Amino acid sequence: MNNPLKLGIAGLGTVGAGVLELMACNGSSMSSRAGRKIEVSGVCALDKRKNRSVDISNFRWVDDPVSLAQSNETDVFVELIGGEEGAARASVAAALKAGKHVVTANKALLAHHGTELAALADKHGGALNFEAAVAGGIPAIKTIRESLLSNNISRVYGILNGTCNYILTRMLKEGRTFDEVLQEAQDAGYAEADPSFDIGGHDTAHKLAILTSLAFGVETSIDTIYVEGIQSISLADLEAADKLGYRIKLLGVALQTDSGIEQRVHPTMVPKNTAIAEVDGVTNCVSFDGDFVGNIMLIGPGAGARPTASSVLSDILDIAKGTIIPAFGRRAEDLKPYERARMRAHEGGYYIRLSVFDRPGAFAAIAASMAEQDISLKSIVQHRPRSALPGQEARNGDGAPQPIIMITHDTTEAAIRAALQNIEKEGNVNEKPRMMRIEKM
Amino acid sequence: MNNPLKLGIAGLGTVGAGVLELMACNGSSMSSRAGRKIEVSGVCALDKRKNRSVDISNFRWVDDPVSLAQSNETDVFVELIGGEEGAARASVAAALKAGKHVVTANKALLAHHGTELAALADKHGGALNFEAAVAGGIPAIKTIRESLLSNNISRVYGILNGTCNYILTRMLKEGRTFDEVLQEAQDAGYAEADPSFDIGGHDTAHKLAILTSLAFGVETSIDTIYVEGIQSISLADLEAADKLGYRIKLLGVALQTDSGIEQRVHPTMVPKNTAIAEVDGVTNCVSFDGDFVGNIMLIGPGAGARPTASSVLSDILDIAKGTIIPAFGRRAEDLKPYERARMRAHEGGYYIRLSVFDRPGAFAAIAASMAEQDISLKSIVQHRPRSALPGQEARNGDGAPQPIIMITHDTTEAAIRAALQNIEKEGNVNEKPRMMRIEKM
Repeated sequence: MNNPLKLGIAGLGTVGAGVLELMACNGSSMSSRAGRKIEVSGVCALDKRKNRSVDISNFRWVDDPVSLAQSNETDVFVELIGGEEGAARASVAAALKAGKHVVTANKALLAHHGTELAALADKHGGALNFEAAVAGGIPAIKTIRESLLSNNISRVYGILNGTCNYILTRMLKEGRTFDEVLQEAQDAGYAEADPSFDIGGHDTAHKLAILTSLAFGVETSIDTIYVEGIQSISLADLEAADKLGYRIKLLGVALQTDSGIEQRVHPTMVPKNTAIAEVDGVTNCVSFDGDFVGNIMLIGPGAGARPTASSVLSDILDIAKGTIIPAFGRRAEDLKPYERARMRAHEGGYYIRLSVFDRPGAFAAIAASMAEQDISLKSIVQHRPRSALPGQEARNGDGAPQPIIMITHDTTEAAIRAALQNIEKEGNVNEKPRMMRIEKM
Repeated sequence: MNNPLKLGIAGLGTVGAGVLELMACNGSSMSSRAGRKIEVSGVCALDKRKNRSVDISNFRWVDDPVSLAQSNETDVFVELIGGEEGAARASVAAALKAGKHVVTANKALLAHHGTELAALADKHGGALNFEAAVAGGIPAIKTIRESLLSNNISRVYGILNGTCNYILTRMLKEGRTFDEVLQEAQDAGYAEADPSFDIGGHDTAHKLAILTSLAFGVETSIDTIYVEGIQSISLADLEAADKLGYRIKLLGVALQTDSGIEQRVHPTMVPKNTAIAEVDGVTNCVSFDGDFVGNIMLIGPGAGARPTASSVLSDILDIAKGTIIPAFGRRAEDLKPYERARMRAHEGGYYIRLSVFDRPGAFAAIAASMAEQDISLKSIVQHRPRSALPGQEARNGDGAPQPIIMITHDTTEAAIRAALQNIEKEGNVNEKPRMMRIEKM
């Protein structure tokens, strides 16, 4: 058996505690399978005396993460501090410069500084592994970095945020509003006190940036991602989608197009009777389209101490066995600059929900606005609102607004925006038109 | 850049042609990402002059696979011949004994001789990789062998045969019989002229044996697997399952129990509204339950030249990059003997379909038979046959047989078998009771 592999673990929050627990439970079988002992040689966190679920009294305590990163007692620096700057960035950079291997669960750090850190890893010969940074326990990074290496990837997409998926699932299943379910998710610990990073789509965007770099061999580019969150999704949308044969999921999607790579995060309609439509609650999924393999989808827990720890350990065990792969699957110097496809050029089907004054000519005008942009309609549904009880329906022709839902054939984002702008301007609707993109599966 | 990695490819059928096509399309990008050129140094097949979709005139032809396996020009012997004995076994063993790396798509060879070949690989230092042997393009082997290495696995299961899944999907969607859809599948090339290996569940059993060995660290044991095929599944079963909220899938399942490992292949009811229920047609899936990661499910194409070639190349590229993992994730000498759990001890819910003579006391007797075995019922459905048109229902009490469907709470296989034997013996049913296991998801 070889020398032990010594871990310096910085950050002892949920994931850090999960890693120590996993080492305590399954450490000896892991060591035997890896052919060398895996041991914790030092730990570091903000507060030594904090009450923790795991006993850390047997571990060497180091006050400063940078010192731990550079320590002679550290072979692998395990960064579980979080955040794109500060201690996380400084200690990871210090570890890589010292020729150490780094394992991190830090999506923000990688989405913002991935290319630069990958170059440091290349230069000094350390690994930079981050399976836990995307989709918790799902082996998405290894799959795209190793298993699909012989493929040209045309698209990567996924349900990458458990909080959003939990909220959308509950709203539809229980017929409840966004605010009610968000509150419940906060009470259950599935949503943060300030949920805007999750529900605004930003968490998904960070994970997507990492997957995009791996899938297409480009530099990470978080700031160019088109992002819409789920705040504006209403129960009416979820129910209308259901009737039309769709589910609504917050997807991150990256797509190779003729004019560059489209990276987008938005509520998306996916057909029912597909596996992704059944990825419910806090579960995540990641999917790749390759030119030879076709479509591969991975489903599993997207967060949580134990699944995330499983991914952290899989990165550590790769290092223990001597498997060192470049961070983004190619040398950092071979990553191409990210070339952004304009969102206006996006092509696909759309769902449109209008609240139309029920008066002569209103629908004709709307249809004309669509036709003007060469948008053809796949289906039109006049959908009675949930609140309308029998006998209380709005009477025909009295001008009261009626919901109209349309599904378009493939068109462009530019055409849809122009048509909706025109419809709004013409004044036949009493609220801003709702629009949602449909993703082909 | 390092020396080129030289491949000797034996077998130029569907998969072999796919591998050559993939090398031709994406070879240069693969070589650049692997850091060394991957090249074909020799090929071998039964008939040099056979008409093939790929041009092999530029490759060195070797008549004998054993010679190709041992050739100085071969670094990696790629075995795509198939079959558990004969040329495949001889050439793979010869390659391993000569210290070569082996990549194979041969499930039968591994299911029957996996432990012995893994020991040869260990002894002589070569890799034995077989991602393509299980579930086509799905990276199931890498996931269990590398990503989930820190977990204790309690269960592995999957839809591992595209032919069966295609037939079951079509029967339900189109309301057609097994024989009709089998014929269509044969015409479409999704089923063999002799389909018994697929529909009898044996193909699934081979793949399950490999997954079991990887998941539980035991020697492969194909002959101890309990196997039922899909031949006896009727449209009535599929429709009854649908009504009760289930889909029927042919699953391979391996489960760690107190009395050993349960390995079984049989038609299985899985709840609707789960991802696995939506794995339709020729698509496959593989799922693992780990003590830390929870449930991970991988979905993708289970067969076909291009997806299978993608898996073959992922194995080759691992070797090119120097990633050599023991065949079953541990040294062969560390694999434990397979300890079989008796099928009679299987615990779970059951679906039972009886055709009961509609006469006084019949159902009471059936209920008594169940109660005698301590089987409690979750639901009972009296299901009107499809053929009964309104006004033509069998009249109550005229003795004509009526279908009765029951779903049980958890019980044992032994109890169910005893109860059904008794029910049959008592003569209140006009055909052998149908029984199907329900798998928890």
